[in-house]
Amino acid sequence: MNAPLVIAVDCSTTAAKAVISTADGQVAASASRPLLTVQPRASWHEQDAAEWWTATRDAIAAAVGMLDEPGRVAALCLTHQRETFVCLGADDQPLRPAILWLDGRAHAEIAEHGSARVHELSGKPGDTTPAIYKLAWLARHEPETLRDAARVGDVQAVLSLRLTGRWATSPASADTLGLFDLPRRTWSNELLDIAGVRSAQLPDLVPAGEPIGMLLPDVAAALGLPAPVPLLSGIGDGQAAGLALGASEPGIAYLNLGTSMVLGVASDGYRWDPAFRTLAGIGPHDHTLETVLNAAAYVATWCREQLAGDADLEQAAAALPPGAEGLLTLPYWNAAQTPHWDPLARGAVIGWHGRHTAAHLYRSILEGVAYELRLHLERLEAATGTPVTQIRAVGGGARSPLWVRIVSDVTQRPVHVCSAGEASAAGAAALAWSHLTGMTPQQAAAQAAGPLLDGHDVRPDPATAARHTALYEVQQRLYPQLREVFSALADARDVPIG
Amino acid sequence: MNAPLVIAVDCSTTAAKAVISTADGQVAASASRPLLTVQPRASWHEQDAAEWWTATRDAIAAAVGMLDEPGRVAALCLTHQRETFVCLGADDQPLRPAILWLDGRAHAEIAEHGSARVHELSGKPGDTTPAIYKLAWLARHEPETLRDAARVGDVQAVLSLRLTGRWATSPASADTLGLFDLPRRTWSNELLDIAGVRSAQLPDLVPAGEPIGMLLPDVAAALGLPAPVPLLSGIGDGQAAGLALGASEPGIAYLNLGTSMVLGVASDGYRWDPAFRTLAGIGPHDHTLETVLNAAAYVATWCREQLAGDADLEQAAAALPPGAEGLLTLPYWNAAQTPHWDPLARGAVIGWHGRHTAAHLYRSILEGVAYELRLHLERLEAATGTPVTQIRAVGGGARSPLWVRIVSDVTQRPVHVCSAGEASAAGAAALAWSHLTGMTPQQAAAQAAGPLLDGHDVRPDPATAARHTALYEVQQRLYPQLREVFSALADARDVPIG
Repeated sequence: MNAPLVIAVDCSTTAAKAVISTADGQVAASASRPLLTVQPRASWHEQDAAEWWTATRDAIAAAVGMLDEPGRVAALCLTHQRETFVCLGADDQPLRPAILWLDGRAHAEIAEHGSARVHELSGKPGDTTPAIYKLAWLARHEPETLRDAARVGDVQAVLSLRLTGRWATSPASADTLGLFDLPRRTWSNELLDIAGVRSAQLPDLVPAGEPIGMLLPDVAAALGLPAPVPLLSGIGDGQAAGLALGASEPGIAYLNLGTSMVLGVASDGYRWDPAFRTLAGIGPHDHTLETVLNAAAYVATWCREQLAGDADLEQAAAALPPGAEGLLTLPYWNAAQTPHWDPLARGAVIGWHGRHTAAHLYRSILEGVAYELRLHLERLEAATGTPVTQIRAVGGGARSPLWVRIVSDVTQRPVHVCSAGEASAAGAAALAWSHLTGMTPQQAAAQAAGPLLDGHDVRPDPATAARHTALYEVQQRLYPQLREVFSALADARDVPIG
Repeated sequence: MNAPLVIAVDCSTTAAKAVISTADGQVAASASRPLLTVQPRASWHEQDAAEWWTATRDAIAAAVGMLDEPGRVAALCLTHQRETFVCLGADDQPLRPAILWLDGRAHAEIAEHGSARVHELSGKPGDTTPAIYKLAWLARHEPETLRDAARVGDVQAVLSLRLTGRWATSPASADTLGLFDLPRRTWSNELLDIAGVRSAQLPDLVPAGEPIGMLLPDVAAALGLPAPVPLLSGIGDGQAAGLALGASEPGIAYLNLGTSMVLGVASDGYRWDPAFRTLAGIGPHDHTLETVLNAAAYVATWCREQLAGDADLEQAAAALPPGAEGLLTLPYWNAAQTPHWDPLARGAVIGWHGRHTAAHLYRSILEGVAYELRLHLERLEAATGTPVTQIRAVGGGARSPLWVRIVSDVTQRPVHVCSAGEASAAGAAALAWSHLTGMTPQQAAAQAAGPLLDGHDVRPDPATAARHTALYEVQQRLYPQLREVFSALADARDVPIG
């Protein structure tokens, strides 16, 4: 029998991805199944939670099916899209579609409940992302859903229920709902009251890396697993990526330049500040501080799909000078997060002239996201007093040499581009190996994510610093100037016709 | 022999167009020849003035060649792009390319010289358009050009020199250079000093509709004209369109919804105000008050060419609701004119969300131009005390049913869409008929432009008024919020690299 394997599943926004690997991160098999998001209204984003399970099941079964010796699988651990939640009835079926992290329906509830008190208690600024406001929206608009729900929980809880029969998740998964008294690491009655949720509806909490339970025999059989396999308690995808990329160490930040942009660092004390959102980390006193922009590669993809036809924007944008000849993009296509936390903010492109092309817009989007990252870094460092000396980048945007060059030049910092791979899944695998071997999660991660941490460094070009700084300073003036315009525009676009 | 004919030539920015017609506006023949604009730098717009003549000559010759009886041609009259100028040497050849009305090189000179005093004297707010600032730029950057120039003049003066041998133009053509003491209708020494121009370089002034001279015999022969033909003094294309469309009457405005948008009304006294620019009219005490946006259909065309691929934006935009689902466009692609007159202003698109497509942008551009027109009308009416009760629209934009619908809904005014045709040329023809028949120019125009004034009326949909008003009020907040950003952006984009 060969060396043991673990299955890590990342049930993300777009797909359930199963990665089976060795303790040193060699991938033995992997498979993924897509997840469909529907938008019944412009700002609503929903999924059928039943598909979380079918996609996860099918991805695991497909990956296991590629193994010569499925009996080598020693453990399973999950990571997942965060803040997303679903309400299950007494029959464990969804009472309505799951509401996703990027769903923007609850701006009235954010305005009503998104206080400094809630921020201090939960670690989360008032913002579209935490579930608490969307739960409050449900309490107002669909009270029967919360009334009838036997269970209200996150993605891991739903998958745990299917895999083991136990309604359980980890603090670092559940916390993202925004219902925790985060310093005390417990559900907060004060926050549950705002959300209209009863504590009996919530999943059990199992510390990260500890066993939730064994896979149900019929489930294990359906997955093609001959031996008993424990499900170990996983964590949210951001913290999992941070674990994999070594961001437990001071000065090292993980950067996921994907659909959204998330930069995270570890904190061993509890802090709350508009400069970041605070999340439960792996250990009971660990926290993760994250800056976030909900639309990053999302905007670049939008530009290519909506405005570019067949043009190769990447190449054309790379040929343009820094600053896109005077075009600035405020990339708030999906509201503003760090540090403004404004659900009514929207995108803005300023400086248009006739010489500008789709490639100028594209470059301006990449630069605009990088200017936001510079702002995030400066605010984070000011709030924590700890400089970020290395950025370790993953995600689709990190595969763009142009974008990484821009990020390095705008922030004037080195960027380590990790090898292509599943960073969040590597973090979940590390938790499993930690349990199996007795290593700390960080030690396990250094092995499990070794191949991922291969990659290359991009160093900033100092010649571009002065222009980028000048443009960054102009960019910083946009949101304060437009804040009230965004609010007025939200009112005006809803004036009825006729 | 049949009824007499006149030749009207509109030597515009894009083409020289010759229209030969009867006194009641029946077109006997027409032809046009394109003109090339080059942009040696991003904000520079230049033409070879020699092409004004060759394009005009070839267009006239082609149109005359279509006539059975060219001897019926009784007069020739010109209209033309305004504010554009050229410097000719002692050999009457251009010393450098002509500098066009939309050329934006002289923002430093506008900042230096564009005072209230210059506005009061010339009738023209400090702005990219008048030649005076670009002449001051030449005086600073190419002093030898102005030193060596035997002649400095407008398009009509150049064509008059070629056609008749006389260096002459009308006050309503020359005034647009911005060198007139407009209340006195004479060249101003104070303004000539700013421009660095000597009065000896300037063309003779011949009142509109009066003879400049007979066509030179060899020129007439080359054009195919057997009989002696006088050149009658023409006027700028805006005033000519206003004459043709009956905007000499109070309450009637002409609207050219073309590359740029110009709305004009007559004024029998001299007025100056940021709400408009004041131009010499036909009679010695007539003035034309114009509001202007330098990039109107220009932006719509830019959107189609740069961002739309092959999509039918007109149809897709028409299917969207008023307000383009929360997208606002400040259409200052070529700086801001009425009422801000800011050469550093640029375009801005605010409110982007993932649901927006190229069609949303296109609709937002059409609406943004219409919001500017509403602002222009409100400011103009406030300054003059005279309501605009009918808008008579020509230009490429008036051929778009969607755009005219939007203009009528946004301004909540009826819009008379004139038949397709050459409004400025019809005005020049009316001046010629006035001279030939003894009618007033307005009487001659009522006949000569009769076919053009056929068309149809578009009436506003009151159901859209409330939403458009709400969005208009948000739109009005954009420029004040972004004014200093535009200025800072102009500085930042010029910070050198390396």
